[in-house]
Amino acid sequence: MGDKSVLVLPGIGMAYGMKLIGDGYDKAYVLFGKYLVLRKNKMQFIFWLKQKYGISMNHATNTANCFKEWADQYM
Amino acid sequence: MGDKSVLVLPGIGMAYGMKLIGDGYDKAYVLFGKYLVLRKNKMQFIFWLKQKYGISMNHATNTANCFKEWADQYM
Repeated sequence: MGDKSVLVLPGIGMAYGMKLIGDGYDKAYVLFGKYLVLRKNKMQFIFWLKQKYGISMNHATNTANCFKEWADQYM
Repeated sequence: MGDKSVLVLPGIGMAYGMKLIGDGYDKAYVLFGKYLVLRKNKMQFIFWLKQKYGISMNHATNTANCFKEWADQYM
């Protein structure tokens, strides 16, 4: 994950990515931290992305799946 | 890190650990998520532990150093 931008995450396009960046979620690891704080609960994370940033269920699910896979593999 | 309790973290004793658990930070990875959301900023994380839970600078620094080492090695 390193220092990668939030913009390279699956499900995060430029429009919503800029909103996330504006809120301080500029790096993939910062958004991943939110996923961990939500206890790796994919549905809560997807709901949060949808409610707060208007990201579609489908796109938010792609992001959540990416974080789940990373956590399953490395944590 | 896996599914370890927050209580096994350096700097987190039983008394403050129970406060953290009461707030939902029961697993090490949930508290680590907070560290990531705070952009891996050790001073902000230490300040947050001190302000919110009354954990001493010294103990909070131990926790922060542990998370810094984990992130440096695995992320």
